[in-house]
Amino acid sequence: MPVRVVLDAMGGDHAPRNEILGALAACKELGGELELILVGRQKELQPLLTKEGVTSGVRIVHAPDVVTMDDEPSSIIKQRQNSSLYVGLAMVRDHQADAFVSGGNTGAVMATATMLCGRIKGVSRPTIGSFFPTKTGRPTLLVDVGANVDSKPKYLADYAVMGEVYTRLMLGIERPRVGLLNVGEEDTKGTEVARAAHELMKALPINFVGNVEGRDILSGENDVVVCDGFEGNIVLKFAESILSFLKEKIRRYADRGILQKLAVAAIAPVLRTVLRDMDYQEYGGVPLLGVNGVVIIGHGSSSPKAIANMIKRAVEVVQRDVNGHIERALQ
Amino acid sequence: MPVRVVLDAMGGDHAPRNEILGALAACKELGGELELILVGRQKELQPLLTKEGVTSGVRIVHAPDVVTMDDEPSSIIKQRQNSSLYVGLAMVRDHQADAFVSGGNTGAVMATATMLCGRIKGVSRPTIGSFFPTKTGRPTLLVDVGANVDSKPKYLADYAVMGEVYTRLMLGIERPRVGLLNVGEEDTKGTEVARAAHELMKALPINFVGNVEGRDILSGENDVVVCDGFEGNIVLKFAESILSFLKEKIRRYADRGILQKLAVAAIAPVLRTVLRDMDYQEYGGVPLLGVNGVVIIGHGSSSPKAIANMIKRAVEVVQRDVNGHIERALQ
Repeated sequence: MPVRVVLDAMGGDHAPRNEILGALAACKELGGELELILVGRQKELQPLLTKEGVTSGVRIVHAPDVVTMDDEPSSIIKQRQNSSLYVGLAMVRDHQADAFVSGGNTGAVMATATMLCGRIKGVSRPTIGSFFPTKTGRPTLLVDVGANVDSKPKYLADYAVMGEVYTRLMLGIERPRVGLLNVGEEDTKGTEVARAAHELMKALPINFVGNVEGRDILSGENDVVVCDGFEGNIVLKFAESILSFLKEKIRRYADRGILQKLAVAAIAPVLRTVLRDMDYQEYGGVPLLGVNGVVIIGHGSSSPKAIANMIKRAVEVVQRDVNGHIERALQ
Repeated sequence: MPVRVVLDAMGGDHAPRNEILGALAACKELGGELELILVGRQKELQPLLTKEGVTSGVRIVHAPDVVTMDDEPSSIIKQRQNSSLYVGLAMVRDHQADAFVSGGNTGAVMATATMLCGRIKGVSRPTIGSFFPTKTGRPTLLVDVGANVDSKPKYLADYAVMGEVYTRLMLGIERPRVGLLNVGEEDTKGTEVARAAHELMKALPINFVGNVEGRDILSGENDVVVCDGFEGNIVLKFAESILSFLKEKIRRYADRGILQKLAVAAIAPVLRTVLRDMDYQEYGGVPLLGVNGVVIIGHGSSSPKAIANMIKRAVEVVQRDVNGHIERALQ
């Protein structure tokens, strides 16, 4: 049985071109495992498919409207019912598709998915996690990175469970190490919410390693690090800014003179290799965990390769029944 | 009138050697502007001073006890009254010295300073800020980085005022740009506390630029970024871990073979220069803002150069009457 993936072809910054190229790359790689449905403006999509020589195998579902980055997430349910985002998620809700993939407005995808598909039984709040590269090469999932702020302790405990299931099934880790992002090791440390969450997490049937500090995210010693979406989003955005910070520093160094320019030209290939796994495009987007339906969200600037990775990720998440495992874990 | 600075000679990891070398370097540079007092075990300090050829100009105040990294901050007031930390801070309280400098247990210094010296009138909570390097080269002060968690909105507004005074007087910036660390631009974004703090900060007579995101700390566009000590400490520790993350990535690359080793050897000088301003040792420690007395806290691993910078920073903070300006700003 192929996995039916709906791709929001209008979502990203370079839509629909990157989406179509990414979709075709995924189809080529996955063959009969994947049934791909493109949702968006038929008149824009069909010619591009034809141009790529695709006459069958990829279905288009027409949706005349598009959600923009300026749309208030809560308004889409009422005002954008003909958007590719809404139409695509409704297909998942109605079991006409198994997964939805989009590079668009993250808040919009999340709000609409939660309202249309509902939460998995037992989930207090759906969450979005993001993988971080680490010293050891083994990525760490930081969760929540912005779905919820002012999380109650129970929400944090649920993020821990969902993150544990996800990394166990998707990365093949037997007993994922799960930590709570905090400001010190002792369980008396941190905010009131962190202390309460610590107690809840201690009682979960997972490999809870206790508090971890800001310096432990990149260490590679933890598979899942749990936090509220407030600090999670701040850390994620800070981390994303580091690459451009380094590039700017290197650029200014090169500007000092011809010798410096030559030195920088010499080191560029080394740095590219070293910093490659800070390239978030490789990770195949991030899952929205806790909704009844598989939803993968990516950066708006996703390349065709990144989009293909997101589709492949969606197929894996369906095949490994991550949502079923989450529901059982939360019983 | 020389500024009287008490240096906790027993505080750091390499005490008292680094402290003495740093102290002598500062004395050499500042001459009559500085009156340096070393506090610690006379029997350990005197021989080292003699060895360095110092017979006058640096005074020793004896303190037989030392606060360790394991001491609970709240216990020092009762149990370590003969420690260099307590004795030194008591000298500031009693106006026998103008400033206290220490590379020791940050929590201990902060708790003891607050209890012994008290808060500047109008300050809700003293705070510790940390400078971050930025794209433009102009550092950004992130405040609070761990003095307080679960800050109320009024505390955040006070951090803004204190940070603004500090950067204005110490960095010579006419109208420091002050932002609130948050998860989006709109003032409806963020936690309940952040939203309330936003409103308070809008009403302050400072150049409040609104919300700034995690990616804006390294941008160089803001002089002060305000946050609760919880996310501040997490971001600070995350940032500190980046250098060792990069070094590890480079090391693993070099391990691949002889060509890679040569490439890394070639790029090492460039990287050292580029990354030099991520060297926190250059910044001269961080001020504890809001206590009645000038207190500069540094890393335990501070080098003699870093300690000299901390002493110089203390002298400047006294000379520019930062505390007087803070009190007036909070009236």
